[in-house]
Amino acid sequence: MYKTADILQNAKAAAPILAAATPERKNLALEKIAERLLSEQENILRANAEDIEASRSRLSEVMIDRLNLTPERIEGMAAGIRDVILLPDPVGRVMERVERPNGLVIEKTSFPLGVIAIIYESRPNVTSDAAALALKSGNAVILRGGKEAFRSNAAIVEAIRLGLQDASLPPELVGFVEDTSRDSARELMEARGFIDLLIPRGGAGLIRSCMENAKVPCIQTGTGICHIYVDASADQEKALNIIENAKTSRPSVCNAEEVLLVNRAIAPEFLPKLHLRLTEDRAKRGLVPVELRLDEDAAQIIPGTPAGERDFDTEFLDYILAVKLVDDVDEAIAHIAVHSTGHSDAILTQDADAAERFTRLVDSAAVYVNVSTRFTDGGEFGLGCEMGISTQKLHARGPMGLQELNTYKYIVRGDGQIR
Amino acid sequence: MYKTADILQNAKAAAPILAAATPERKNLALEKIAERLLSEQENILRANAEDIEASRSRLSEVMIDRLNLTPERIEGMAAGIRDVILLPDPVGRVMERVERPNGLVIEKTSFPLGVIAIIYESRPNVTSDAAALALKSGNAVILRGGKEAFRSNAAIVEAIRLGLQDASLPPELVGFVEDTSRDSARELMEARGFIDLLIPRGGAGLIRSCMENAKVPCIQTGTGICHIYVDASADQEKALNIIENAKTSRPSVCNAEEVLLVNRAIAPEFLPKLHLRLTEDRAKRGLVPVELRLDEDAAQIIPGTPAGERDFDTEFLDYILAVKLVDDVDEAIAHIAVHSTGHSDAILTQDADAAERFTRLVDSAAVYVNVSTRFTDGGEFGLGCEMGISTQKLHARGPMGLQELNTYKYIVRGDGQIR
Repeated sequence: MYKTADILQNAKAAAPILAAATPERKNLALEKIAERLLSEQENILRANAEDIEASRSRLSEVMIDRLNLTPERIEGMAAGIRDVILLPDPVGRVMERVERPNGLVIEKTSFPLGVIAIIYESRPNVTSDAAALALKSGNAVILRGGKEAFRSNAAIVEAIRLGLQDASLPPELVGFVEDTSRDSARELMEARGFIDLLIPRGGAGLIRSCMENAKVPCIQTGTGICHIYVDASADQEKALNIIENAKTSRPSVCNAEEVLLVNRAIAPEFLPKLHLRLTEDRAKRGLVPVELRLDEDAAQIIPGTPAGERDFDTEFLDYILAVKLVDDVDEAIAHIAVHSTGHSDAILTQDADAAERFTRLVDSAAVYVNVSTRFTDGGEFGLGCEMGISTQKLHARGPMGLQELNTYKYIVRGDGQIR
Repeated sequence: MYKTADILQNAKAAAPILAAATPERKNLALEKIAERLLSEQENILRANAEDIEASRSRLSEVMIDRLNLTPERIEGMAAGIRDVILLPDPVGRVMERVERPNGLVIEKTSFPLGVIAIIYESRPNVTSDAAALALKSGNAVILRGGKEAFRSNAAIVEAIRLGLQDASLPPELVGFVEDTSRDSARELMEARGFIDLLIPRGGAGLIRSCMENAKVPCIQTGTGICHIYVDASADQEKALNIIENAKTSRPSVCNAEEVLLVNRAIAPEFLPKLHLRLTEDRAKRGLVPVELRLDEDAAQIIPGTPAGERDFDTEFLDYILAVKLVDDVDEAIAHIAVHSTGHSDAILTQDADAAERFTRLVDSAAVYVNVSTRFTDGGEFGLGCEMGISTQKLHARGPMGLQELNTYKYIVRGDGQIR
């Protein structure tokens, strides 16, 4: 087993080679990695079978399915890498250029961060996705996956490293932490001088631990208590479609709706339609009905579970929706200011002033007008990919694509200027 | 004395009002603040005289001078605020706009961070400078200055708050921490949920403490071990001018040169000229001569102090320059990779390939070709101002102007889109 400190040292030493590599060189490496994932398929599947065997008794069906690899899923991983090849190279872009009166030419130029570390949980496809995005953006990457997928991840990293060697790049560019205990996570969080960006991808506990303990730059991802506010002027048919979509199309993801705010003026008309649509109507369509957790005022209009104190501060990730009545857009904005995690919040309205007020005052990564919150996603935003969704305000906010995995430097050219 | 927790709470509550304020409203407030600084001048000077009286016995002449306010200096503070009024408003700028095939219109739009906290040391003019930049960029600000300037800072904040009230904005937008002990600094570092960005401006100890202890997003500023590499092809006359300027025009600042790397091939010719210029020649001009700390090879060519192990890792902030010979641009780049703090590094060369290699591979906030490192400064870069110079890679790098005090959000407009 390699020591984490050695892996970090080796990645840091290799990083400048990739930072200076041409787009063609990086794309060649990615193509070789895709090929190796396919040619090393048997090893990967064997390792994956061992992982599943080892944890079958401890994991739920859903977890086993997330862990499971098939030839189709490996093909999907290779195809994902080939999609990354097609994305524009983010490095060396002149973001701003000024010529100063004294003749200095100053170019603000994008540049790789250096070494990116990712701490993630179950799904082994994150291993190849994250490595591809880090490499394309010119960064070395340190991968620290979960215990359940350890053998699968190791086999995938092995294939990635063979691909790097095929392209004459150092395999140390992709570091793999073999220790899956909390110690190694902690070691990464404290590796000042070796890690330029740490991205935790996983549950709330992991993210909180990074926020509290990290001494390296870290980006908070994920947690989404997303709100939809139905204004008095909303198109109610579209509102029902959006709410059902945002809540039920994939309840386990961070951009799913958790809280519905309804303008008091339309509640007597709208709530019964909502109730019908999300409960009986879904049952008739053979779909899981949504449990409504209602504040006192909503509970006087439709049946449902009485909402508890915590229901407006919970990321349910389930077929559960908290519902509250508000007087107007300002009360909705005020509720969101206190209870949102700053991920994605929407207003449904035909009133341009209300929409303008909501978009100006709601301080979240994505603020929607008449759109489902489910669109907060690198692919849907046209970034082509994503390394996670930032819910913090520094550096990157919302879906993080290749650009967000770069920093910049000022390149200043002159002819002997002094000050 | 207000509790820091209350100050934070009040600033957070007031921040959205400023975030939504028009550019005209913010500029009006800044003008009122400038006027109040002048009309409250007597109070400020009296408080400043008390500060100086209280610490005269403990502080050096230089420190007293930094602390001292005069009518001219207060006029300078007011003029500085009026300069900020003239800068373009950074809020609400549409940085990117895409129209997706499904009809969504996505606008990446700049937006204030929220609450910015600044921990700073002696100079009281930082109080008005920092407040002006924070307010112009739409942010509430928490100021925590040093003990020596406590009364001066309090009087300046009082004037600023009167100005805010004159413009009908809440005075809580500028919070002033009255506790100048380490406890209050620690409290700010840990105020998760209340501070969106913490900027330490001061000595290395303060900055290190923030990096190690902050649980809020924090930007590392300042420390500059800046290098100049003289390539074999450099114009030696210009090189002497640049080196003298970078070292001596203001040795106490972070963009001053600390280490000189000289190509071995020209050392026998160049080093004697350097020695003459920085020692005897300066003495003749009545200027402080520079102490040269020489590596073994350089010491065989010119007289000077033998360099110790730590001399290539020290921010002297003094008339001292460490000098080392290197074989070529690659050895210079390798030395900088290990010893630079990532602030500002320069190559002096007539060789386009060497310049290209240096700018591509040196990973610092500002990389110069044939220019003094002293230009790393918000004003010199055309930003009009600066809140500090970031030496980290996340969010902001180099001089931080108004743009760097904003985050962004995605505003997404549609017509009922679901996913």
